Amino acid sequence: MRGEAGGVELTSPRSPRVTAARRLHKRAFRSQDRRFLAEGPQAVREALALAPGAPGRPVEVFATAEALARHDDVLGPAAAAGVPVHRASGEVLAALAQTVTPQGVVAVCTLLDVPLGAVLEQRPRLVAVLANVRDPGNAGTVLRAADAAGAEAVVLTDASVDVYNGKCVRASAGSLFHLPVVLGAPLPALVEGLRGAGLRVLAADGAGEQDLDALADRPGAQGLGGPVAWIFGNEAWGLPEESRRLADAVVRVPIHGRAESLNLAAAAAVCLYATARAQRADGGCRAGG
Amino acid sequence: MRGEAGGVELTSPRSPRVTAARRLHKRAFRSQDRRFLAEGPQAVREALALAPGAPGRPVEVFATAEALARHDDVLGPAAAAGVPVHRASGEVLAALAQTVTPQGVVAVCTLLDVPLGAVLEQRPRLVAVLANVRDPGNAGTVLRAADAAGAEAVVLTDASVDVYNGKCVRASAGSLFHLPVVLGAPLPALVEGLRGAGLRVLAADGAGEQDLDALADRPGAQGLGGPVAWIFGNEAWGLPEESRRLADAVVRVPIHGRAESLNLAAAAAVCLYATARAQRADGGCRAGG
Repeated sequence: MRGEAGGVELTSPRSPRVTAARRLHKRAFRSQDRRFLAEGPQAVREALALAPGAPGRPVEVFATAEALARHDDVLGPAAAAGVPVHRASGEVLAALAQTVTPQGVVAVCTLLDVPLGAVLEQRPRLVAVLANVRDPGNAGTVLRAADAAGAEAVVLTDASVDVYNGKCVRASAGSLFHLPVVLGAPLPALVEGLRGAGLRVLAADGAGEQDLDALADRPGAQGLGGPVAWIFGNEAWGLPEESRRLADAVVRVPIHGRAESLNLAAAAAVCLYATARAQRADGGCRAGG
Repeated sequence: MRGEAGGVELTSPRSPRVTAARRLHKRAFRSQDRRFLAEGPQAVREALALAPGAPGRPVEVFATAEALARHDDVLGPAAAAGVPVHRASGEVLAALAQTVTPQGVVAVCTLLDVPLGAVLEQRPRLVAVLANVRDPGNAGTVLRAADAAGAEAVVLTDASVDVYNGKCVRASAGSLFHLPVVLGAPLPALVEGLRGAGLRVLAADGAGEQDLDALADRPGAQGLGGPVAWIFGNEAWGLPEESRRLADAVVRVPIHGRAESLNLAAAAAVCLYATARAQRADGGCRAGG
């Protein structure tokens, strides 16, 4: 690990460079500076794997001497590729990180959301929409599940939490850097766009009139085999009536036991995986991972 | 709302009655007193729905005057059924509750775990085993997903978190009171017991040699249509080699995208729902919920 990281260690949480990064803990400054923080070696590794110039690519990295030594596989190539890596004291890292036990690495990344049009022109076959999701941990966990299930994009509507919130970034476990994210779409325009691009729009709701398993049993696009966009509601896992009306169908995950509902991330994972399975069984155009 | 709750309001967090309940925040005292705390109207409602004398049934309830008025449907019947309901100040409730915004109701319940034998003699067809799960929120969320998917029991092995931890109780969203819970089983003896009761034992692991979807495609007990017990590992969603060896098969949820893994609760929900669907498609002996 040479280059900038070999220089003077940043020891003051009040130095201009650190202060400029720290203020990204606040949403207003993230919007203004068009930057956010990604914390921990996993997220930083995924961010650095992005092509130079790609949205989300780190503009600088802060790391303790210990982290520099331990994660040389991640940080060495960063410095070589022209991403400044600043050696920083534990106190500086603690000021930049939001977890109690920071792992010694924080990157300042450019915002990475893309316009809806850029996603739709790729003709995606599986999209997850978060409408009104307020808890950043839940949003990040759904993003991770959507990535795992092979979704080609995640959309957060205008009433949802900020995807660049530190808790969301951490809960996504790197997935924020894996698939296109669209922000701020109002639900009616979004549904129109998705439908125009050939996706069937399904709203997930505990009170849905269609049973997920019954739907999955139907062949092809009658079931879940065609292109599908899922809308997931807020933490109580409900969607308001006006949102449900926008969808082509409202679908419930069956509750076989006595639970009132599933939590958001579990419900989303079940819906997305049922769709991925149906799309693959129908010989969709995508190869299995 | 009459009866005991109409009496003197408990105002001191240091009164003997409150101190006796408060100490149940600590695992050692829960074990010693054979009691735990359930917080919030949903959990208290589920606990009070248990038959008198059933494990888990509250022995007393603390509620603010406001909560007594608002949740009369829950607390009125409690007093009538002989469960003492103590009117308590906001300060007392804050001392008893662990959430920042307690909803004014906390119940002291008897421990409700049952011996493994009691579960096995019911010949269950779907069981979730948490091996080495350390995060109480994750354990509670899996419990909730298992309940939703129709599992007939949840087992926590000896290396897992305490199911009576307040975070676990809250994350289960009432499900802790819905289905039998077995605690402290060492995994080898547990697997032997489950297999002896006719269950196929499947370990969920990201590195599993069998693909969940491929397994679900096989008919009957060759696939997921027969009685199944799932073993879920710890947060990193891995099981040690010696645990995997105990299972009849090690199964992975396919990762279609670029995520490294799913989080524990999402993976458990996908596995349990795939099984519930297969068991129902195969005309299992249970009615759908």
